[in-house]
Amino acid sequence: MATIDDVLAAVDAGQGAALDRLFAFLSIPSISAVPAHFPDCDRAADWLATELDGLGFEAAKRPTPGRPMVVGKIAASRREAPHVLFYGHYDVQPVDPLSLWRSPPFEPKLEAGPEGEQIVARGAADDKGQLMTFLEACRAFGQFGGPPCHVTALFEGEEETGSPSLPAFLADNAKELKADIALVCDTGMWDRSTPAITTSLRGIVAEEVTLTGANRDLHSGLYGGLAVNPIHALSRILGDVHDETGAVAIPGFYDGVEEVPQEILDQWNALDFDAAAFLRDVGLTTPAGERDRTPLERLWSRPTCEVNGIVAGYTGEGTKTVLPAKASAKLTFRLVGKQNPERVSQAFRAFVTSRLPPDVKAEFAGHAGSPAIALPVKNQALRLARRALEVEWGKPAALVGSGGSIPIVGAFKRELNMDSLLVGFGLEDDRIHSPNEKYERNSFHKGARSWARILAALAA
Amino acid sequence: MATIDDVLAAVDAGQGAALDRLFAFLSIPSISAVPAHFPDCDRAADWLATELDGLGFEAAKRPTPGRPMVVGKIAASRREAPHVLFYGHYDVQPVDPLSLWRSPPFEPKLEAGPEGEQIVARGAADDKGQLMTFLEACRAFGQFGGPPCHVTALFEGEEETGSPSLPAFLADNAKELKADIALVCDTGMWDRSTPAITTSLRGIVAEEVTLTGANRDLHSGLYGGLAVNPIHALSRILGDVHDETGAVAIPGFYDGVEEVPQEILDQWNALDFDAAAFLRDVGLTTPAGERDRTPLERLWSRPTCEVNGIVAGYTGEGTKTVLPAKASAKLTFRLVGKQNPERVSQAFRAFVTSRLPPDVKAEFAGHAGSPAIALPVKNQALRLARRALEVEWGKPAALVGSGGSIPIVGAFKRELNMDSLLVGFGLEDDRIHSPNEKYERNSFHKGARSWARILAALAA
Repeated sequence: MATIDDVLAAVDAGQGAALDRLFAFLSIPSISAVPAHFPDCDRAADWLATELDGLGFEAAKRPTPGRPMVVGKIAASRREAPHVLFYGHYDVQPVDPLSLWRSPPFEPKLEAGPEGEQIVARGAADDKGQLMTFLEACRAFGQFGGPPCHVTALFEGEEETGSPSLPAFLADNAKELKADIALVCDTGMWDRSTPAITTSLRGIVAEEVTLTGANRDLHSGLYGGLAVNPIHALSRILGDVHDETGAVAIPGFYDGVEEVPQEILDQWNALDFDAAAFLRDVGLTTPAGERDRTPLERLWSRPTCEVNGIVAGYTGEGTKTVLPAKASAKLTFRLVGKQNPERVSQAFRAFVTSRLPPDVKAEFAGHAGSPAIALPVKNQALRLARRALEVEWGKPAALVGSGGSIPIVGAFKRELNMDSLLVGFGLEDDRIHSPNEKYERNSFHKGARSWARILAALAA
Repeated sequence: MATIDDVLAAVDAGQGAALDRLFAFLSIPSISAVPAHFPDCDRAADWLATELDGLGFEAAKRPTPGRPMVVGKIAASRREAPHVLFYGHYDVQPVDPLSLWRSPPFEPKLEAGPEGEQIVARGAADDKGQLMTFLEACRAFGQFGGPPCHVTALFEGEEETGSPSLPAFLADNAKELKADIALVCDTGMWDRSTPAITTSLRGIVAEEVTLTGANRDLHSGLYGGLAVNPIHALSRILGDVHDETGAVAIPGFYDGVEEVPQEILDQWNALDFDAAAFLRDVGLTTPAGERDRTPLERLWSRPTCEVNGIVAGYTGEGTKTVLPAKASAKLTFRLVGKQNPERVSQAFRAFVTSRLPPDVKAEFAGHAGSPAIALPVKNQALRLARRALEVEWGKPAALVGSGGSIPIVGAFKRELNMDSLLVGFGLEDDRIHSPNEKYERNSFHKGARSWARILAALAA
């Protein structure tokens, strides 16, 4: 029977051919946001289905109301082996401004980087390169009888446009797609030499509030001082949302918030996150938010309220003496632990309503919300994968959080009641969504090795 | 020698012909905002110059960088008679939406109104009808040797576009235009049966503030909780501008504010202003602003701060998880007494600057400011004009304030160091700037009689 070292040697030996395959995939301009590229999305899906087929998967392109899914399945020789669902996406971001690219975005090339060779192309990191690390691991196992886990591969073509077809596809094919755990590769390393597993994602709920005073815009000279100004009311309310310590002052907002397990917290503190550098990069010097929390807690494990937009009255050039009838704001709340999106919405609405001055009415609109996601630190797959990554990289894998949300992970939990293991080999400077996107050749190579180790570990 | 009764009888006898003249004037579509109507503005100026000429004035159309001025001068027979400068404007507002007019806006007609005949046309009240009340008074005096005061008439054609040429014209012709007092007719009656003199106008100063946090828009999930949000800072600052009693909380803001003389205050209180009806008309029920002040004080004699506009971040449809780099607001301050526009600007800027959280920078832009205007209640012209109006209307003239600003009055004070007596016969329901603008035939007739009495009183 083959050992993991045999499989890793196969990965190493196949690097040249693997790069050729990735280049072929990267040459397809599968931009999902641009209808003229819909045929290219189809070509990318076909290309993946053919690849899967060649790897011994039973694979098919599956229609959706938008771009097609590709689903492939392969069984492990050992029937009791665990079943994993690997997710990736074949669509890429638009390329404009094209003039900022050093070479055409769909003519992939190797460039010398400061830390080794880089694969430069749109989609190199997001997500074609990452996706192919997993397939290359499967290919290496193929030389020795196939992957040690039952594997379902699910590739979508609408991730960059908000995955509109995905939730229904999961719901309609729940039985077929349900696995023991999902493997999601759309994340990054902690730094160039430290692998990472993302174990928590904040949830989100969005609210829009419009305050109305008079039944029409008024002249601020003829009415000012006697007629209520909804901008004043809105400013005061939004100004009260945070208290002096930076905490959110909405009663009930913190219901369901949980402290991060000490094990995770110790690990975060050991990461030596350079908050000053993080802020300096965007022109800031001083951490905002909750005073008594570490920077990583503020970003990963504490809930927030951010006003994303506000508008009222006259906003053009010069001045207009208007006392406006309406003022509105858009907010998003990031959620953690067991915070309930709907109850957070209600708490915000009650907070606003309780502070309205006479004659000011509030109207609210809500947008889709999703709770936070966390993989328990005791999760067996997490512990196995972490150990596998440590062996490959020679350093313990960082257990990190993310302040953002990854909708697919919420969909897997909601539609399939399936946890996700988030492992990826992207780097902060990969320029995803920007010109000259790149993926380190080292990420591509050691990423494939890492997946080989993880699959072996999960099956052990 | 003719008595005032002879002059008034001449006004009465000439009403038919006066109406024909006004209709001819109203037929000229002198819309100053619309370049296609610039030739009509010229025609209206020519028409006025010809009228003045016929009344014995030495009159001329005078060029400006925009629409022409018309200046006419006539001397009283008595050399020591006072010298008045009468101001009006021949330009009118645009007429759209045309479909809401019951008859073409430049085909003036008499309509039966609930309280007597109405002259319906664009400009009927603002300002052609008002302007002509004065010229018809001069015409009546003409039958008896001319007006009892030295009169300079100044008519502009850019009032509805902000009088851009006026300040320079006043400065360039200061010596020629300076008089003992300016008579400005662009105001209204207190109600249908009560004449009014506007003795105070609030000043104004405008400020624009832009707060900047990060050097670019950030993702509110990936940065929210650690990066400062300038919308939060702006909301908090604007929310603090007013205290719990509705007063402005900016240190130094009230410097120079004066209490209204008791005589004026008593008179305001006697006016029985119906604040509830005033607010009901715009859909409100509850006076906002300074709690311990009467509604008329809040509108006329108390300074205010109103936010006229605010904008930041994402304001389109739906939601966008942005933590914006910038947030900005436009404000106007209404000034009273001796409040200094520049010092109010400085006080506001200091207030904002002192409240900026770390990493938030403020940039300010100011717009032209002007101090408040008040005609002292002891002013001789005011007392004489008030008595003249009382005789004509059978009721004391109300001494009223205005919450707005009339730029020409500030310009007379600033450029010519000349006070203005603001008397007009418009009514609240004249629909100025709106479709079906009207001027009451009674306003037109008794307006001319009133000016005859005022000129006689000033000369006595």
